[in-house]
Amino acid sequence: MDETSQPIEVLLSVSRDDRRGLGTQIEAQLRGAIREGRLRAGARVPSTRDLARQLGVSRRVVVGAYEQLAAEGYLTLRQGARPCVAETARARVFPTPAASAPAAAPRFDLRPRAPDVSAFPRSEWLRCLRDALQAMTNAELGYGDPRGVEALRSALADYLGRVRGVVAAPERVVITNGYSQGQGIICRVLAARGARRIGFENPSHPDQRRIAERAGLEIVPIATDDAGIRVDQLDRAAVDALVLTPAHQHPTGAVLTGERRRGLLTWLRQRDAIVIEDDYDAEYRYDRAAVGALQGLEPDRIVYAGSASKTLAPALRLGWLVVPARLLAAVTDEKDLADCGTARIEQHAFATFLARGELDRHLRRMRARYRRRRDLLLDELAHALPEATVRGIAAGLHATVELPGDHDERAILDQARRRGINLMTTYDFWIPPGTGAPTLLLGYAQIPVPAIPTAIRALADAVRSTRER
Amino acid sequence: MDETSQPIEVLLSVSRDDRRGLGTQIEAQLRGAIREGRLRAGARVPSTRDLARQLGVSRRVVVGAYEQLAAEGYLTLRQGARPCVAETARARVFPTPAASAPAAAPRFDLRPRAPDVSAFPRSEWLRCLRDALQAMTNAELGYGDPRGVEALRSALADYLGRVRGVVAAPERVVITNGYSQGQGIICRVLAARGARRIGFENPSHPDQRRIAERAGLEIVPIATDDAGIRVDQLDRAAVDALVLTPAHQHPTGAVLTGERRRGLLTWLRQRDAIVIEDDYDAEYRYDRAAVGALQGLEPDRIVYAGSASKTLAPALRLGWLVVPARLLAAVTDEKDLADCGTARIEQHAFATFLARGELDRHLRRMRARYRRRRDLLLDELAHALPEATVRGIAAGLHATVELPGDHDERAILDQARRRGINLMTTYDFWIPPGTGAPTLLLGYAQIPVPAIPTAIRALADAVRSTRER
Repeated sequence: MDETSQPIEVLLSVSRDDRRGLGTQIEAQLRGAIREGRLRAGARVPSTRDLARQLGVSRRVVVGAYEQLAAEGYLTLRQGARPCVAETARARVFPTPAASAPAAAPRFDLRPRAPDVSAFPRSEWLRCLRDALQAMTNAELGYGDPRGVEALRSALADYLGRVRGVVAAPERVVITNGYSQGQGIICRVLAARGARRIGFENPSHPDQRRIAERAGLEIVPIATDDAGIRVDQLDRAAVDALVLTPAHQHPTGAVLTGERRRGLLTWLRQRDAIVIEDDYDAEYRYDRAAVGALQGLEPDRIVYAGSASKTLAPALRLGWLVVPARLLAAVTDEKDLADCGTARIEQHAFATFLARGELDRHLRRMRARYRRRRDLLLDELAHALPEATVRGIAAGLHATVELPGDHDERAILDQARRRGINLMTTYDFWIPPGTGAPTLLLGYAQIPVPAIPTAIRALADAVRSTRER
Repeated sequence: MDETSQPIEVLLSVSRDDRRGLGTQIEAQLRGAIREGRLRAGARVPSTRDLARQLGVSRRVVVGAYEQLAAEGYLTLRQGARPCVAETARARVFPTPAASAPAAAPRFDLRPRAPDVSAFPRSEWLRCLRDALQAMTNAELGYGDPRGVEALRSALADYLGRVRGVVAAPERVVITNGYSQGQGIICRVLAARGARRIGFENPSHPDQRRIAERAGLEIVPIATDDAGIRVDQLDRAAVDALVLTPAHQHPTGAVLTGERRRGLLTWLRQRDAIVIEDDYDAEYRYDRAAVGALQGLEPDRIVYAGSASKTLAPALRLGWLVVPARLLAAVTDEKDLADCGTARIEQHAFATFLARGELDRHLRRMRARYRRRRDLLLDELAHALPEATVRGIAAGLHATVELPGDHDERAILDQARRRGINLMTTYDFWIPPGTGAPTLLLGYAQIPVPAIPTAIRALADAVRSTRER
C-alpha cells in the first residue's frame, strides 16, 4: 500500500448493508473529508485502482464516484496524472453557533402584537384545508392569477362590503401575505409612478415607515389628535400619498371623526393623492358598531388594506388589498414579481372559512372575550395606577395608557422587564422618537383573565419604582 | 309625508325577520343608495322622526343609524338642519367588467411551467397539515422568526446536505415564498450594500432579470455554451453578483463542467463577488446521479436558492435560501420587511413531509414518470421533426429542441396556437430577445403519455407550415 493512499484508507469505509449504493457512500465520505479540511486543496487521492482494491469494490464504482466529484468541482482528474483534490475545493463547514441560552419567557406579555391565538379555531381551519385540497382542480395547484384565488377574492369582496362598508369587486382584490407585503407593494408602485413624499400619522408604527422608506419614499409626519389625523396640516405637507388608520388610530386609539373624514376626502380629491387605509383591528369595537371603512367613499383614490393577523393568527400570513382601477395592473405585476402570488391551498381554505361564516362566529366569540379583558384591565389600572389616563376608544387589542409628562418610558420598560413583564410604549412610534407624552400600550389579547390583576399590580410597581430613584 | 322623504321611502324597507338588526338594515340600504348614485351628494334625507315613522321603527334606531353613517362620512348631521348626504360622498360602484369569454383551453400544453400537479400527494400533504395543526404551540401561531420555522430549517438543512451536497446549517436557511421572492430579497440586499452590476446567463429567464432590475441592479449578459456559463468572460463583465443555474442551465439544459466550476470558484474568490445559485429542477436527472450544488464548495460567497414549485406544486409557494454568514442579518431583515415571514402552518407541514421521506418517495415516483415521457417525446420528435436537435442533458421537465437557423420562432408559436398547442420558445430568454438559434422548450411534465405522439405530430405540422408560406 503506498504512502498517498494511507490517509484515505483511514477515512473511507463502505458497507453493503447501507441502503445507499457503494458509489454514493464513497462520494459522501470524500465530499465530507474535503469540506471539513481533512483532505486539503491539491492533496492527492488514491488512484481508482488503489481505492477499489482497498475497499474491495469494483473499479467501475470508484471511477463513477470520482467522476461525480470531478463534475461537482471537488476533484481534478487529468489523463495520466494522479487524481487530486481541486485547488478550488477549500470550502469550510459552518462554525457551530454557540448555543445561546434561550431568553427566559416573561411572566406577563403585555405587548400588543398578536390576537389570542390560543383561541385559533384549529379544527375548523383544518376542515377548510381538507375541503380545499379535495375541491381544488389540478390547474389550481399551479401558478394562477397573481392577485390570488378567485373564490377568495369573491368571498372577501362580499365580507368587506358587508362588514366594513368597502366597495370591493373581486377583480380589484389582491391577496397578499399580510398587511406589510401589501403596503410594500403599494409603496413601490407609487414610487415607480413618481410619488416622492408619503405622509404617516404621528405617532405611527415605525416598521410601516421603514417599508415605505425602502421603497424610496420620503416620510412626512402628520400630527394627530383625539379626532384622528390633523387634516388641516395636509395641504402644507404636500404629500403624494398617505397611510391612514381611520377606524382606530394606531397607536393612540382615536377614531377619525365624520368631519375630518369629509375634510380628508376633499383634500384627497384636490391633491389627487392616494390613501392607503390600514384597517387595523377594525373588527374589534366594544362600545358601539365599528365605523365603516373610508374606502367606500372614494374607491378610486383609497387602497384598502386588511389582514387575518389580528382576527385569526399572524402565522397564516393572509392579507388583502382592494385597489383603485388605475393602480390595479401595476399592483398585480408587483405582486407577481414579489412572489408569484400567495400560497393557494390556504387561500381556498380561507374562502371556505369566510363563506361558512366561521370568521363572523369567531369574531363574535372573541369580541366578548376581549371586552371582558379590557374592562378588567382598565378597572385594575384605575386602582393600581390612578395617575394614568386611558386614551382612545373602546376598541382593538390594546389600551393606550398615558402617564403624566415627567415619566420616563424607557426606565419603565427596564423596570417592567426586571419584573418579568414584556411591555411596549409609544417611544418609537413618534417622529422623532420619544417626542410624545409617555404612553404604555397594554395589549390584553394574550394575557389570561386571572393573570391581569397581578400583571397590572406588578406593572404599577415598576412604574412607581422609576419615580423613587 | 313631505317631498324630500319620498324617494327614501321607495328605497328603504326593513324586516324584523332579518338576522341583522333594524339599524344595520337602514345603514346598509342608505350606504348602498349613496354609493350607487341613487342618493347624490347634498341630497336631503328624511329627518330621523320621519324615517322612523315611515318604517315603523323607534326613532332611537334611526338616530343610531344616522350617527353611524355620519361617522363614516356618508351623511352630514348639523344641529337644527335637515340631515343630508355629505358633499364628499360621491363614491361610485365599480363598473361591472365586461364578461370576457374565457380563453379556450388548449388541446396540448407544452409550456414548461409546472410539474405534473395531477400527481401532487394530496392526502399525504393533508396528513402533514393536520399533524402540524395538532403539534404547533400557540406561540407558533404568532409571528416568530422571519427566517421561518426552526423545524423546517433543520429538515431542509439535512435534506439539502444529503441530496444536493449543500453546506447548510439551520441558522443560515431562510424560508421564502418560492424562488422569485428569494432572488428579489438577495438582489435588494446586494443593491443596498453597493452592488451595481449583476450577471445573468445568456439565455436566461426574463422574469428573473426583471426582478433584479427592480432592485436597481444593471443586468450584464454572460454567454453560455454546451459547458455552461463562459467563465472566461466574467473578468471583463465586472459584475458584483451573478445568477447561475449550474446543475442544469435554464433553458439550454447544459451542465456546468467540473473545469468551469473550478474556474468559476477562482473568479468568485478573486472578485469577492456573490453567486445566486438557482438550483433549478436539479432533482430531475435521468441519465446519471444529479451533479451536486456549487454552494458546497464556497458557502461564504454562494447563496443557494431552491423551491418546492418544480418538485411538488407551485401553489404551495414554498422556497428557501441558504445564505452566507455576511449576508444573513440583512437577508433576515429584508424578509421581515417583505412580509414578516412565510405562512407557518405550511412550513410545519413541509418539515414533517421532508422528515418522513415523503419528498424522496414522491421524487422517485416522478423521476420514472418524467423519464418515460421524455423518452417518448424524443422518439416522436426524431420521427416527426428530424431536422431538430435536442440540446442539453437528460434532466428537468422540458426538452430543449433547436431548429435550423432559418426557422421563425414566432411564426411557429402562431401556427402552434392555431392547432391548439400552447408552446414556449427561447425568444425572450435571449439578450437581446430573439438573438439565439430558434429553439422550442417542450415541457413534458403536464402532458399525458397517450397525448404525446399526437401533440408532437401536430407540432411538426405547425413547424412545417411556417416553411411553406
